Amino acid sequence: MLFIERKEEQRKRWGKINIEMEKLGADALLVSSKVNNFYVAGRIFMGYSLIMKNGRVIFFVRRPLDAEGEEVVYIKKPADMVAYLNDNDIMPKKILFEDDKMSVNDFRRLQKMFLGVEFSGGGSVLSYCRSIKTPYEMELIKISGDIHSKTYSAVPEFFKEGMTDRQLSLLVENRMRENGSIGVSRIAGDTMEIHVCTVLVGNNADAYSPYDFATTGGGVDSSFPVGYNGTKIKQGMSIMVDGCANKHGYLSDMTRVFAVGELSDLALHAYATSVAIYHEMVKMIEVGTKCSDIYNKAFDMAKEAGLSEYFMGHKQQAGFVGHGVGIELNEAPVIAPRSRSIVEMGMVMALEPKFVIPEVGVMGMENTVALTEKGVIVLTEGDYQLKQLL
Amino acid sequence: MLFIERKEEQRKRWGKINIEMEKLGADALLVSSKVNNFYVAGRIFMGYSLIMKNGRVIFFVRRPLDAEGEEVVYIKKPADMVAYLNDNDIMPKKILFEDDKMSVNDFRRLQKMFLGVEFSGGGSVLSYCRSIKTPYEMELIKISGDIHSKTYSAVPEFFKEGMTDRQLSLLVENRMRENGSIGVSRIAGDTMEIHVCTVLVGNNADAYSPYDFATTGGGVDSSFPVGYNGTKIKQGMSIMVDGCANKHGYLSDMTRVFAVGELSDLALHAYATSVAIYHEMVKMIEVGTKCSDIYNKAFDMAKEAGLSEYFMGHKQQAGFVGHGVGIELNEAPVIAPRSRSIVEMGMVMALEPKFVIPEVGVMGMENTVALTEKGVIVLTEGDYQLKQLL
Repeated sequence: MLFIERKEEQRKRWGKINIEMEKLGADALLVSSKVNNFYVAGRIFMGYSLIMKNGRVIFFVRRPLDAEGEEVVYIKKPADMVAYLNDNDIMPKKILFEDDKMSVNDFRRLQKMFLGVEFSGGGSVLSYCRSIKTPYEMELIKISGDIHSKTYSAVPEFFKEGMTDRQLSLLVENRMRENGSIGVSRIAGDTMEIHVCTVLVGNNADAYSPYDFATTGGGVDSSFPVGYNGTKIKQGMSIMVDGCANKHGYLSDMTRVFAVGELSDLALHAYATSVAIYHEMVKMIEVGTKCSDIYNKAFDMAKEAGLSEYFMGHKQQAGFVGHGVGIELNEAPVIAPRSRSIVEMGMVMALEPKFVIPEVGVMGMENTVALTEKGVIVLTEGDYQLKQLL
Repeated sequence: MLFIERKEEQRKRWGKINIEMEKLGADALLVSSKVNNFYVAGRIFMGYSLIMKNGRVIFFVRRPLDAEGEEVVYIKKPADMVAYLNDNDIMPKKILFEDDKMSVNDFRRLQKMFLGVEFSGGGSVLSYCRSIKTPYEMELIKISGDIHSKTYSAVPEFFKEGMTDRQLSLLVENRMRENGSIGVSRIAGDTMEIHVCTVLVGNNADAYSPYDFATTGGGVDSSFPVGYNGTKIKQGMSIMVDGCANKHGYLSDMTRVFAVGELSDLALHAYATSVAIYHEMVKMIEVGTKCSDIYNKAFDMAKEAGLSEYFMGHKQQAGFVGHGVGIELNEAPVIAPRSRSIVEMGMVMALEPKFVIPEVGVMGMENTVALTEKGVIVLTEGDYQLKQLL
């Protein structure tokens, strides 16, 4: 197994990280988490990536045992890494580490081994760099997006009168896998977890939730209170399908809503408003826009439409209307009132202005979009019309 | 929503934790992770459980917003918890925290808020307490185990000549969900992740892996190198189905192997040896046995059978032959050569003596068993025979 398959792609990422490291006066950045190692190396492995300020990157690999490459160093334990750096006289003086992810225990162990080395927080460097995607990363998200569109187009074929949200969810989730999704949606933060897709209908869309998603659902059990809850799908309800497709480790995030029979005027008004807000958000995505301004615009439009009490939830409202997406579902930037992020070239974001209408369900749509030199492109293709099922 | 539904059950758990806290001279244990909050509260929520040494437990809840109960305190931010403890004059002097799970950033923030409070590592208290299951926890695992047995019995019905491991895996995983599994297998540690079930055939069983599972497979993509890799299932191969069922947040872990046509004598010998080792391991599970002794016995039996080079992997071998299971797939104790754990009443363990035979696949079995006052009981029922498919 060759460790780095796309060296030019990886070099771009290392270059970005180097620039940010320099701003913090660090000699190296030590990457230890699964997702950040994947970002740096282009593959999942157990171990560390050490990014040096001269552009050199060393991979200290615990597993797998067949990694090949000039900068691969096998270690059995972290101390072997320290010994290697000392033996080769390349021990950095100041190392950034993943302060947002590394456990206190792991950090204390490292500190003891790296005697005399200054450690400083570097988690924000990685999340910032990851928020700016390369063209190749966008291509990978588009591949997922195509699986997404294809899967959602099968919902009318799956739907049968009298079925439950659970039955429909299992069919959609299984089809997503059949269409090539690898079946895992990585999410940052210990408190977040989710199915491959979330199917919400009726009042389950309005469930109180421990999770910080836009619309979560109550789930079937207090041990995993997310997604379907067994509601029988009835006329007058909407069906929301929201989920992640993931072909090569890069996620697309997409929501479409289906109408079962005739929906209330309020629901239809909410849907039309969602589409209008989405288009306005797309227009605002250009270099230099404050993410907080995008949120405020979305909120104002919801308010003007008389829908603020249903915006991003009803009984429990989410505090954002979009977010970065890539290796994880919840990347930077977040489109929220207090976000300090500014839109930059290369950012990939899921825009999801949604409303929760009691008795009906979620009304709204979501696309993953990217800001490129040619403007905003949509990575989850498909029309925005409310799909009528009965 | 009533916060604590089964107060007697939760009290048992808090009592165990209190005993361990006292040994460390602590006034309180602060629980912050999803899985440990679930253990303490019996439900998933976002926030903290503070276990006081007098037996009192306070739940500081950020989400969901409909939690009801005498000891539920709503907080918007961690500082609200500090204010509550100060206002009520119940600020502990020494607090144990989840040093194995909490990030450096989160810990630093807490330390700044809890001025003058001594923090000390408490992660091991929680993992130890969780390793000793109550009868109710065993019941929950048994419910998952029944879903498991039912799902695996459908494999002969799913199997068709010429299908791939991926096709079979999707069918098994979907059936597991249809049979009531909630579709998430929680695992401790940032570096671990897995599908609902792992189906391995032929040489994919022998793939090098970044993950620390007994048998992992290579997967279809370097972004998620676990499980099926698209191998066409052929005569002379074994099909291993290994996975977690999960009905109420408590996992069962179970493996069965199916033979496609005639397997080699070596493979059949390995299978028979696995069953023999499994039975020997079950015999050794009694109060006071060292987990390292169980591993050594298993290893010795493999060696005596002339199979040590295939034991727990071939090209890359796993360093354990069993592990605790409960809320997470990889709980204490681990049955490994350097394990310092001793078997105690109430422990629930997955026993998985397996062999990887080149060209064939995994040969072996796995059951989740519990040590009760009535002896060892099997929570994943079913016979141990190799199932013939063609």
